[in-house]
Amino acid sequence: MQSSEHHIAPAAGKVGVLTVGLGAVASTFIAGVELIKRGLAEPVGSLTQMGTIRLGGRTEDRVPLIRDFVPLAGLDQLVFGAWDPFPDTAYESALKCGVLERAHIDPIAAELKEIEPMPAVFDRAYVRRLDGYNVKPGTNKRELAEALRQDIRDFKAAHGCDRIVVIWCASTEVYLEPGPTHEDLAAFEAAMDTSDASIAPSMLYAYAALKEGAPFMNGAPNLTVDIPAMVELAAAQGVPIGGKDFKTGQTLLKTVLAPMLKARMLGLQGWYSTNILGNRDGEVLDDPDSFRTKEVSKLGVLDYILQPSRHPTLYGDFHHAVRINYYPPRGDSKEGWDNIDFFGWLGYPMQIKVDFQCRDSILAAPLVLDLVLFTDLAHRAGLKGVQEWLSFYFKSPQHAPSVYPEHDLFIQQTKLKNTLRWLMGEELITHLGTEYYEDYEG
Amino acid sequence: MQSSEHHIAPAAGKVGVLTVGLGAVASTFIAGVELIKRGLAEPVGSLTQMGTIRLGGRTEDRVPLIRDFVPLAGLDQLVFGAWDPFPDTAYESALKCGVLERAHIDPIAAELKEIEPMPAVFDRAYVRRLDGYNVKPGTNKRELAEALRQDIRDFKAAHGCDRIVVIWCASTEVYLEPGPTHEDLAAFEAAMDTSDASIAPSMLYAYAALKEGAPFMNGAPNLTVDIPAMVELAAAQGVPIGGKDFKTGQTLLKTVLAPMLKARMLGLQGWYSTNILGNRDGEVLDDPDSFRTKEVSKLGVLDYILQPSRHPTLYGDFHHAVRINYYPPRGDSKEGWDNIDFFGWLGYPMQIKVDFQCRDSILAAPLVLDLVLFTDLAHRAGLKGVQEWLSFYFKSPQHAPSVYPEHDLFIQQTKLKNTLRWLMGEELITHLGTEYYEDYEG
Amino acid sequence: MQSSEHHIAPAAGKVGVLTVGLGAVASTFIAGVELIKRGLAEPVGSLTQMGTIRLGGRTEDRVPLIRDFVPLAGLDQLVFGAWDPFPDTAYESALKCGVLERAHIDPIAAELKEIEPMPAVFDRAYVRRLDGYNVKPGTNKRELAEALRQDIRDFKAAHGCDRIVVIWCASTEVYLEPGPTHEDLAAFEAAMDTSDASIAPSMLYAYAALKEGAPFMNGAPNLTVDIPAMVELAAAQGVPIGGKDFKTGQTLLKTVLAPMLKARMLGLQGWYSTNILGNRDGEVLDDPDSFRTKEVSKLGVLDYILQPSRHPTLYGDFHHAVRINYYPPRGDSKEGWDNIDFFGWLGYPMQIKVDFQCRDSILAAPLVLDLVLFTDLAHRAGLKGVQEWLSFYFKSPQHAPSVYPEHDLFIQQTKLKNTLRWLMGEELITHLGTEYYEDYEG
Amino acid sequence: MQSSEHHIAPAAGKVGVLTVGLGAVASTFIAGVELIKRGLAEPVGSLTQMGTIRLGGRTEDRVPLIRDFVPLAGLDQLVFGAWDPFPDTAYESALKCGVLERAHIDPIAAELKEIEPMPAVFDRAYVRRLDGYNVKPGTNKRELAEALRQDIRDFKAAHGCDRIVVIWCASTEVYLEPGPTHEDLAAFEAAMDTSDASIAPSMLYAYAALKEGAPFMNGAPNLTVDIPAMVELAAAQGVPIGGKDFKTGQTLLKTVLAPMLKARMLGLQGWYSTNILGNRDGEVLDDPDSFRTKEVSKLGVLDYILQPSRHPTLYGDFHHAVRINYYPPRGDSKEGWDNIDFFGWLGYPMQIKVDFQCRDSILAAPLVLDLVLFTDLAHRAGLKGVQEWLSFYFKSPQHAPSVYPEHDLFIQQTKLKNTLRWLMGEELITHLGTEYYEDYEG
Repeated sequence: MQSSEHHIAPAAGKVGVLTVGLGAVASTFIAGVELIKRGLAEPVGSLTQMGTIRLGGRTEDRVPLIRDFVPLAGLDQLVFGAWDPFPDTAYESALKCGVLERAHIDPIAAELKEIEPMPAVFDRAYVRRLDGYNVKPGTNKRELAEALRQDIRDFKAAHGCDRIVVIWCASTEVYLEPGPTHEDLAAFEAAMDTSDASIAPSMLYAYAALKEGAPFMNGAPNLTVDIPAMVELAAAQGVPIGGKDFKTGQTLLKTVLAPMLKARMLGLQGWYSTNILGNRDGEVLDDPDSFRTKEVSKLGVLDYILQPSRHPTLYGDFHHAVRINYYPPRGDSKEGWDNIDFFGWLGYPMQIKVDFQCRDSILAAPLVLDLVLFTDLAHRAGLKGVQEWLSFYFKSPQHAPSVYPEHDLFIQQTKLKNTLRWLMGEELITHLGTEYYEDYEG
Repeated sequence: MQSSEHHIAPAAGKVGVLTVGLGAVASTFIAGVELIKRGLAEPVGSLTQMGTIRLGGRTEDRVPLIRDFVPLAGLDQLVFGAWDPFPDTAYESALKCGVLERAHIDPIAAELKEIEPMPAVFDRAYVRRLDGYNVKPGTNKRELAEALRQDIRDFKAAHGCDRIVVIWCASTEVYLEPGPTHEDLAAFEAAMDTSDASIAPSMLYAYAALKEGAPFMNGAPNLTVDIPAMVELAAAQGVPIGGKDFKTGQTLLKTVLAPMLKARMLGLQGWYSTNILGNRDGEVLDDPDSFRTKEVSKLGVLDYILQPSRHPTLYGDFHHAVRINYYPPRGDSKEGWDNIDFFGWLGYPMQIKVDFQCRDSILAAPLVLDLVLFTDLAHRAGLKGVQEWLSFYFKSPQHAPSVYPEHDLFIQQTKLKNTLRWLMGEELITHLGTEYYEDYEG
Repeated sequence: MQSSEHHIAPAAGKVGVLTVGLGAVASTFIAGVELIKRGLAEPVGSLTQMGTIRLGGRTEDRVPLIRDFVPLAGLDQLVFGAWDPFPDTAYESALKCGVLERAHIDPIAAELKEIEPMPAVFDRAYVRRLDGYNVKPGTNKRELAEALRQDIRDFKAAHGCDRIVVIWCASTEVYLEPGPTHEDLAAFEAAMDTSDASIAPSMLYAYAALKEGAPFMNGAPNLTVDIPAMVELAAAQGVPIGGKDFKTGQTLLKTVLAPMLKARMLGLQGWYSTNILGNRDGEVLDDPDSFRTKEVSKLGVLDYILQPSRHPTLYGDFHHAVRINYYPPRGDSKEGWDNIDFFGWLGYPMQIKVDFQCRDSILAAPLVLDLVLFTDLAHRAGLKGVQEWLSFYFKSPQHAPSVYPEHDLFIQQTKLKNTLRWLMGEELITHLGTEYYEDYEG
Repeated sequence: MQSSEHHIAPAAGKVGVLTVGLGAVASTFIAGVELIKRGLAEPVGSLTQMGTIRLGGRTEDRVPLIRDFVPLAGLDQLVFGAWDPFPDTAYESALKCGVLERAHIDPIAAELKEIEPMPAVFDRAYVRRLDGYNVKPGTNKRELAEALRQDIRDFKAAHGCDRIVVIWCASTEVYLEPGPTHEDLAAFEAAMDTSDASIAPSMLYAYAALKEGAPFMNGAPNLTVDIPAMVELAAAQGVPIGGKDFKTGQTLLKTVLAPMLKARMLGLQGWYSTNILGNRDGEVLDDPDSFRTKEVSKLGVLDYILQPSRHPTLYGDFHHAVRINYYPPRGDSKEGWDNIDFFGWLGYPMQIKVDFQCRDSILAAPLVLDLVLFTDLAHRAGLKGVQEWLSFYFKSPQHAPSVYPEHDLFIQQTKLKNTLRWLMGEELITHLGTEYYEDYEG
């Protein structure tokens, strides 16, 4: 397993990046890349741009940048497009969202103005608190999917792209459970034909991408590609898929603090998480059915990390609550407040409280970049279907049915980096390090 | 590296556990073990008692308890002794410290009353805020060390112990830098003869233990065994050593949150940590020279985790402050408040604030137990000198001069668990897991 | 206005204190009074027991205890009774609620065991999350009220009481709006006869008390005596009434912090309040209709203090949200987390965050005591109807229709203390104090 | 006492406002006034500009703006000047301090550039962490004071001012105790002649102001005018004085939360306050001797509010600690974290934790404006010497020796507003309000 003979196709050529949604996350991502290309800002938060990877032992001092180690596309190769139910250009969107300061928008205003969103497939039945009029006509879902496929082909041709990556940066849809129409591709396509309610708009985007041979990444908690039909299609088309729900604020912290408790065998009595946020995301999640989708995504984390069935004394009976409140004064800034009631030696209680004053889109934008570049790498390396090694980026990582998902951020990181080492034929890191002590006598 | 032929001597026989100090930590540890032996409480917080270890792939479902996997001494085999400058028995100490409730002391009062501390080697020049009169006579440091050796031999004989482990659970001494008298064993012994000021009381305990073939673990930030002379002696005697400074409260959190920032390539502008605590530890640390020792131990953490030299843009210029304030209303409960100023995509600032309401001795006691049992295991497995795989337990882990210390709690955990796997000839875990996806098509 | 000729009847004789509800608040109140009577605890939190009152100028040094200044009943004169739908005695209730430690229950166990609750008037339509079987038979509301009157007469006779005070210490009922049946006494009584849904159980208790000449105080946000029919009855009977909703945790803080913003003319953009609590109160409030009653009580506070109509620039558009979450790990301890977004000079934003780790019943119990004693005083002083001077104790103070309620804790305190001064013919305090500076030249 | 025959001279003419120091506070104050004059911002935080005052009963609805009620100078009448050891103009200072955004500086750049600081009386012996070269020559303190007097006369003549107010907006000096040279004016003047070390630079400014007939307000905790010699001089000259230390952040909160505990007779076990701040103020306070001055100013608050001697059970033994840490990442933003350990009924412990994310200069600037305008009013009303009614604005209010200072923000507010009512012959407010209930029967 330590070495591999992976053939990875070269990273050359243009990569079309199509974001579903051109709101706060997508516009912050695109604006950021443009600024970084011009040397006007740093790609902070991006593993592909700033991260390093240790190769060999601690004394070898071989720690290249990841982008010097694996053949990633460069930022100059990226070309951006988007769909959105609002007709605002990336420039107008960036101004309205209030994430970036004028000083970060003005220098690249021309580039942002050129990005006009294609009409979206949008249906208020799935996102109730929004409305938009830059919307594709036609109510048959199969037709809508075909229209999206045509968009992709047109964009590829118009910009001379060699490859396309599609990534969902849009809202949370209402809660859907996997059902019979999601079981295999034939059932799925039949349901598209009848515009079955179980086929959400996000699925049409994913279907279109996969049919066009483009990887699809899912930044929201929507079901989308996390159904057998899509896994089947991805395998058939030989393209990577992944999701779901960008791991940015509170859950990022949770997947760090819960592993700490677990590492130290400290018990958990309760974990109360509340969020206040004031952007479009907060508005959408004010709808209980959209919140339900998000809640399910956020609640699973602790069970998988703490494994109550293995540790009933410690984790068999904790109370976990997650709340999200739309609070306009916060704007795109998001605040998470967590209260953790845990217990130690002989059962004595202790508490941790965390106030996380973060910025949603600022945390999400570099994940979009990394996912685009790593997915494109995976595609060129011949990896297809679910990319579990990208779990690092997701609140609710998609995984093979035979295994449980890994939520622990540090296991996810180890998996990601060892996958890169494995792709490049480098020895995997185990942190054993006994060799430094074998002959050490002071 | 995956398999090994380690011979590990059986765990049979009595293990004498000698704590230096019989204050809050030691009495909580001893009382806890006695309660757990009687089934009156759970060993929460102890990896050796409650932890599991995954062997093989995720689908193999081989996840034994660590104590069923490696041959550890059982709690029934442990016999307790202690040194302390105060003459209180473990019972009196437990009552005075106010850590445990009466309901946790009364059932084991008889056992605790039997543990009377041996007279300590104590010198106010090294711990200024305390005074004690249960102290060994004689001012020549060599003589004091010999008296401690005699104590160990007497205890071993009196209780029929097969093996001894000595562990420092006492106060923080004033700051000392490594100097010429610490360079090798000969210089060290000469300095003992002249009672040189560079030889702190803690070093005499360590010297005595090692000379008697007993491992020594250092729970305070004192220099003690982290000098070449002691490493030399440990190697010569074939015994394990380790330290320093139990990683319990704020630093535990820091070694989890800093790796999160690093994993996500989020930059750091400043980290302000303050602590309020009201026990004897707080009183001792109110002395600036003792605080200096603690401060050095606590400050190093971030630099090693964040590696500013590799990531100057992200970590080249952060402001790190650590404060400790003696605040009697807190008692043994300790509260840490951390403010973390970090930045993300394009440099936008965000903040995390953590209020950690913990209990010092409750967090430390299971570490004492684990260190005793793992060190005894290491000894029986023929591991000698610095036990870097136990870094997991320390704020400032002792390590070989050729490598930097690992502070990231999750790297430490991986190192610990892979060391156990290696000792038992099991495959090391890399979290690659590509096999689950090779033929997965939904 | 400075002086008065109030005749206050002497405080002699026994005062029967009948609590509606014998849960956490009532049992903590009764247990506390019994402990205090025996010198086993201090009446912390009680203005009547520990508070002082300044008389005259700062240099006069006349600052007696309030209980030495006004003729209050002593604790030895109080006799306790209760109604509750659960049959637990005060002893059993105190044990189950988990508010008090055994050390505070054991010494007075005998007294607490004697307090057996009378069968309650209880209807799940008004408190959905509870059920109880110590309930009065009969569904006609008039009959139930008469049964309560009989209880009061029986209790008075059985214990030889000279006076009775009834105080609501029970759950929050579902939300009711004042309607035609509440308009006057005749309509109210007719509605009792037909068991109209607009007549809540709490109103029957209040009606019974007033008809028996006993003051009624309302510790929950229920409508109860805050309707014209009850004000009419109280006036006719010559008895004091008051309410509503004990001001204990988050709202207590709010009525201190909002006045601070107002005093300094700092603007408010938003105030987000969330609560976690794990007792019966939390369980009841998990029902949206009970929560609605509480929410209305909690939300009004800011508008009355900040007066948006007078200060539209500062307070014309703030976002105020109050959330309550049932979180069993907290037990009777309650935690409030407030986030306040305010702005200063030129509109620059600032934030205050408050984490209030309080204990619900510990904060409420002394308010029950003070309200009982002050109401009894008011009754003896001939004050009848709404006691606005007791606003100090309520989240949503009942008041005359001609004026707005005072929510500012410090205005409430001034009103309370100046009322006591006025009752006793002392000069009112204005804090002018110019006299100290007229001839002051250093 | 309710009515008065105060003659108040009209507010007409120009008022020269001379700030000692032209740093963050002074430049934010001046810039703000200029913006407000142009209608480009609101005077948020200023009682004189936005505050109202209730006259008569609640039902009278007479609540004018304070500035419509008392004859204050208008903003258009103010003319600004300053002294500073750095030669930066108000424009350069505003840019460097980083308090205001460019959008708030650019429109008034011309006005700010005109304000060039006069050379300061500065001595590093009193403010160790700063250095400056825009400093008056001459080491004899009397000469320096005379030079300041000349500055005042020159400024007054150059700008055609009718009146002058001098206000200290500069750094905290090292700790000084009142001594023999401060006892009377003759001793003070003799000490100036010998340049005695007990005469701090701030005293020379105050002396110069008073000799020129200008009121002096002290925004730092320095001794300055809080000595008998200055009170004597102010009385002789007929001018108001006041101080000390603007009450902005943590102490503002403390004088609101401590009165809450006191109002409710809740006991206090400990109060731990820490601050992090990153501006020049933080840098100066990093010097232990300057910090000592600040600490004394901040620590006194609780004792005066809680009165331990009257309430030994509740307040006889609390632990109060105040820490200030220089933390450059904060800039002019200041963060206070308070932990309050209090106890209630029967002694049960509870906690409040407050995180105050404020902006130092934004909170101080409107206080400067109010103090200038109210002091000018007092001067015209013939009030001289210590203005205790302005205690509202100070951490450590100056007061007559015969009385204790009032620290409770709400007593201070009542005092301030009743003083205004008294000046204008209006009835004082007592909040009694019994009249609304006398004939109220529902």
